[in-house]
Amino acid sequence: MSIGDVSKRVLLGRKLRSSQLGETLLPKRIALPVFASDALSSVAYAPDEVFIMLSLAGASAYVWSWKIGIAVAIVMTAVVASYRQTVHAYPSGGGDYEVATVNLGSKAGTVVGSALLVDYVLTVAVSISSGAQYAASAIGPLNGHEATFATALVIVLAALNLRGIRESGTFFAIPTYAFMVAILGMCAYGLFELAAGTLPKVASADLDMSAEPGYGDSMTTFALIFLLARAFSSGCAALTGVEAISNGVPAFRRPKSKNAATTLLLLGAIAISMMLSVIVLAKQMGLQLVDPDDVDRLTLNGQPVPDDYDQHTAIAQIAQAIFQDFSPGFYFVVTVTGVILVLAANTAFNGFPVLGSILAKDGYAPRALASRGDRLAYSNGIVFLAVMAIILIQIFNAEPTRLIQLYIVGVFVSFNLSQLGMIRHWTRHLKTERDPAVRRRMYRSRVINAVGLTFTAVVLVIVLITKFFAGAWITILAMIVFYILMRAIRRHYDNVNDELAADEEDKLLPTRVHAIVLVSKLHKPTLRALAFAKATRPNVLEGVYVSVDAEATNRLLEEWDERNIDVPLKVLHSPYRELVRPIVEYAMEIRKANPRGVVSVYIPEYVVGRWWEQLLHNQTALRLKGRLLFAPGVMVTSVPYQLRSSELAREREEREGVWVRPSELRMGNVPTRSGKDRQIQK
Amino acid sequence: MSIGDVSKRVLLGRKLRSSQLGETLLPKRIALPVFASDALSSVAYAPDEVFIMLSLAGASAYVWSWKIGIAVAIVMTAVVASYRQTVHAYPSGGGDYEVATVNLGSKAGTVVGSALLVDYVLTVAVSISSGAQYAASAIGPLNGHEATFATALVIVLAALNLRGIRESGTFFAIPTYAFMVAILGMCAYGLFELAAGTLPKVASADLDMSAEPGYGDSMTTFALIFLLARAFSSGCAALTGVEAISNGVPAFRRPKSKNAATTLLLLGAIAISMMLSVIVLAKQMGLQLVDPDDVDRLTLNGQPVPDDYDQHTAIAQIAQAIFQDFSPGFYFVVTVTGVILVLAANTAFNGFPVLGSILAKDGYAPRALASRGDRLAYSNGIVFLAVMAIILIQIFNAEPTRLIQLYIVGVFVSFNLSQLGMIRHWTRHLKTERDPAVRRRMYRSRVINAVGLTFTAVVLVIVLITKFFAGAWITILAMIVFYILMRAIRRHYDNVNDELAADEEDKLLPTRVHAIVLVSKLHKPTLRALAFAKATRPNVLEGVYVSVDAEATNRLLEEWDERNIDVPLKVLHSPYRELVRPIVEYAMEIRKANPRGVVSVYIPEYVVGRWWEQLLHNQTALRLKGRLLFAPGVMVTSVPYQLRSSELAREREEREGVWVRPSELRMGNVPTRSGKDRQIQK
Repeated sequence: MSIGDVSKRVLLGRKLRSSQLGETLLPKRIALPVFASDALSSVAYAPDEVFIMLSLAGASAYVWSWKIGIAVAIVMTAVVASYRQTVHAYPSGGGDYEVATVNLGSKAGTVVGSALLVDYVLTVAVSISSGAQYAASAIGPLNGHEATFATALVIVLAALNLRGIRESGTFFAIPTYAFMVAILGMCAYGLFELAAGTLPKVASADLDMSAEPGYGDSMTTFALIFLLARAFSSGCAALTGVEAISNGVPAFRRPKSKNAATTLLLLGAIAISMMLSVIVLAKQMGLQLVDPDDVDRLTLNGQPVPDDYDQHTAIAQIAQAIFQDFSPGFYFVVTVTGVILVLAANTAFNGFPVLGSILAKDGYAPRALASRGDRLAYSNGIVFLAVMAIILIQIFNAEPTRLIQLYIVGVFVSFNLSQLGMIRHWTRHLKTERDPAVRRRMYRSRVINAVGLTFTAVVLVIVLITKFFAGAWITILAMIVFYILMRAIRRHYDNVNDELAADEEDKLLPTRVHAIVLVSKLHKPTLRALAFAKATRPNVLEGVYVSVDAEATNRLLEEWDERNIDVPLKVLHSPYRELVRPIVEYAMEIRKANPRGVVSVYIPEYVVGRWWEQLLHNQTALRLKGRLLFAPGVMVTSVPYQLRSSELAREREEREGVWVRPSELRMGNVPTRSGKDRQIQK
Repeated sequence: MSIGDVSKRVLLGRKLRSSQLGETLLPKRIALPVFASDALSSVAYAPDEVFIMLSLAGASAYVWSWKIGIAVAIVMTAVVASYRQTVHAYPSGGGDYEVATVNLGSKAGTVVGSALLVDYVLTVAVSISSGAQYAASAIGPLNGHEATFATALVIVLAALNLRGIRESGTFFAIPTYAFMVAILGMCAYGLFELAAGTLPKVASADLDMSAEPGYGDSMTTFALIFLLARAFSSGCAALTGVEAISNGVPAFRRPKSKNAATTLLLLGAIAISMMLSVIVLAKQMGLQLVDPDDVDRLTLNGQPVPDDYDQHTAIAQIAQAIFQDFSPGFYFVVTVTGVILVLAANTAFNGFPVLGSILAKDGYAPRALASRGDRLAYSNGIVFLAVMAIILIQIFNAEPTRLIQLYIVGVFVSFNLSQLGMIRHWTRHLKTERDPAVRRRMYRSRVINAVGLTFTAVVLVIVLITKFFAGAWITILAMIVFYILMRAIRRHYDNVNDELAADEEDKLLPTRVHAIVLVSKLHKPTLRALAFAKATRPNVLEGVYVSVDAEATNRLLEEWDERNIDVPLKVLHSPYRELVRPIVEYAMEIRKANPRGVVSVYIPEYVVGRWWEQLLHNQTALRLKGRLLFAPGVMVTSVPYQLRSSELAREREEREGVWVRPSELRMGNVPTRSGKDRQIQK
């Protein structure tokens, strides 16, 4: 193993072989955690945002908290019901993008695509920022350094994904089930204490909270409604990630659609219970939470809290109170919450390149993204996602309260178009379907999707009205940019296809082949190139040498004679020491003299195996090939000569096998082994 | 003109055509300024460093200043005399590197090479830092921001060089002659006033300066000698750049060597007069200068000077005093001094890549550096130089006093090896020369070089002793790193050459050619590739298609039949959507079945003209070509199909013509026009 190899191993880890994954379609008990982390993790911040928004009107507004919670739960129920229709109708895993494209046309599909791309960035930024808050509530010294910590987390996550995390069911199952047990267990115990009348108060219950000037008792009804609407739209962050299962149907065990729909129902039920319990407990335990930039609205016994007072999240405060005599319980809750938030961010790291490859297949993104195993394209996606998320984290100082203003616009745009598409889907199928039982099911599905559309449309309008100036305009702007870019890429591919479409004259054979072999020295690669060129029996064959130095030229001519090489050697003089231009001009001249012929340029190349060796060689060959591509009627043949060190490169490649993308598990692409590809002969 | 083209024009400027330079070998009056900026500019900081070093022992030590000046002048005389011998003996412009390589062997040559590389970096850092000081003395608000300003200057200079500055004689002549007039004129007037007894005092003359604790009256003789030696080695910075002319002999008018030697003499005389005048005037005008980190040693009327007191350079203070009633004079002196310092730094930006190309020709640097017009390699050199210089400027806060500790080690290593080489040169020639007149001249030259060697060796020892721990160790470490790197590169090239040396069996012809044409779609590029491949009449010809999707495969097979293509199509199945691996494996299989045959892989490629279009295409072709290079017995032919937009790229290239490197003027490479290259047929 070479040194370069070892250092790559250390930095990026051993690459994964396809065969290491093994055949595993997911049973429901594993599929739930695999797809749930994004949706469930929002319970870690969504309730907080509801309380923070309500706090503008003072502690008395907290009576609205559980009503808002129920409103969010109703919307979630509608969305879950809608997506259960989608997984039945579109079991291929294309998700919202496919539904919108098929039913509403490519423009709607592109809108969904750009909405989802933007949303992945925000998922990373929000989840990691919230995770940093949890870390700070458990580890005191992190207080006030959340942005730095969050940035470091994103970098670590990106590095892990560049390495290729080996994902497995267990990888998701343990933390996700631990999170469910922790939150639901804690809430159940809390609700039991509430019933028993022994529910303790949280730390911030001792504080007094004043309303923001202009809010509070003097508020108009209109202002109150607006405030409640803002709180509601922040709470709707709990809905993000629900759509994940609709992208992952192919990974489920058979019957795929049915299992996926059941898992979705389960996910919805768990998410709603968690959210409502946390809101009720927080309210009953006297939680006081304000915007972190507004801590001066909090007072303790009439004294303002210190400037560096750091509020902890609702779940952290509840856990602290409930487990006040049992600190491991508190640390367990906070740790698994932090872990699930990181897992949610990781979901985005997986989903972003997958979406990229789907868009690429349809011509909306560079085609390289579509080819499996193009590690470079995959890596670019990860780096892009990480950089954008870090920029957001830095700009908004890793405060979920501020980032949440940008969030969920994308998700709800995609929800809406998807539901609208589903309605069109059923309407179209109803036109041809004759079986009354099936027709009845279709009517029912259409009603469910229509209800879903109504709810998500209302939410989208509320979100746009309440959040546009608070940050959502950034999201919309980014979506527009992505949209324009994707349309331009598609237009380019279409133009190229038109230009490339074959017609009859393309089958004309060139009349003659004029072969030239580039000679720089008389060494093995040159002799091999001459032999190969001769084997193709061209009409004309000559060696071509660019002379920049009379002495070297004479030496070469002598050697050419001595070795009795039966190919004429043409010398091109280049007084200004250029190599590429004289060759290109010579090839074009030959072509001009015989426009129906073809010029075949043979370039002897030697191949080295180490990256630093590659820096030292073949720059001229590369540049020459690049230039000759632009010369019409010229074809360029590389005749490689493998040096000993090139074996290293081949061995390394074979050892490493095919690279597996971390997202394969979720895509249902689980090859058994990288065995031989079968071949058929036509 | 495309948009990309316009934006490149704005950023990088119009590229230069060879024909724009015109035929100009340099007359002496132009050659002097072209080569003098580096050597003359050191008068802007060398005297200051002498005073600063002496100040450690208090104002009384300043009596030594003019004696040290004279010592430096003597060394400079010896060095100038020595280099006059070099320009006669080596008129090819190889300079110290050539002298050392030819006479002392390649290892000595490599040492000189690495010394010069390091020195170029320091020339930029020191000159620009000193230039920033001058700017600060004329523009008040810059005080205290010298490092930032210097960094910005380096970036601007690098950008200008990446653009390709159009250098001409005038470009150098005006500022250099202006600088000579300014400094010599000011000094002459000052010396006249000194004789007339009306010489004013400089601003810092009112200050009182105390000695550094441990120095001053209580100093031992040994400590005093050490201090004087340090001051002397700082003063020797005035010698840097003297060797420039020996690299530029080919650019002189005939008789080249004689003209170069005369110019060198002139340069030495001017540099010595400037330096001595400045030192004498500064002393007589009461200059007080301490290390900028030690301003607390200065007091004004018993009060310490303020912490933010910013010392100005000797020349700036002298100009301020002499032109106290005529401020334009002061601004003129300071401005031209700043400009000449920037020109000196620019010399390094030109010289660094030139040295790189010389080293590359001898196999000590990546070969790409040697080819003229390799803009990429040239640009990498400039960026590397700028980054290293900026790092030094930032670490040492743009203080010439601290940077000077690293400087001149490299120059003096190169001086020494060059003088030693010259002695060997004369000794060798004396063995064969019989003409007594010539022998006498050779004896004389050898004596001059021996004297030169003695002086430079003494200076090198003094520099090493006095500066090693003050910073010179960094320089030496960097030289060692460059040396090891250069030897390793050379060893690699030698190994490759050995491995590539031709022997008789290399002329064996392959027995048969098996051609495969890669098919992705049935479009124009594919049809062209099939036609071209057919024209080469291979023994076997087949199309190869990698199937990742049954539907697309069937469509292609149908179309293949419809169009009556008389080439069989082989379909390789790739269930995991890989494209590259099945093709590589198939090619290797064919080769294995027929080890004496050759596999010819034709890749249809379409060529687009804009950089962003290139991002969208042909990634697979590139990766495939890269992988196939490692397969023995396989040759890879690109059959390009030029899309309309590719014309843009060709037109752009033709319009821009050949790129001229900014250093051409100094190299004597002045092509008249980029006309046609002549060709001879063997």
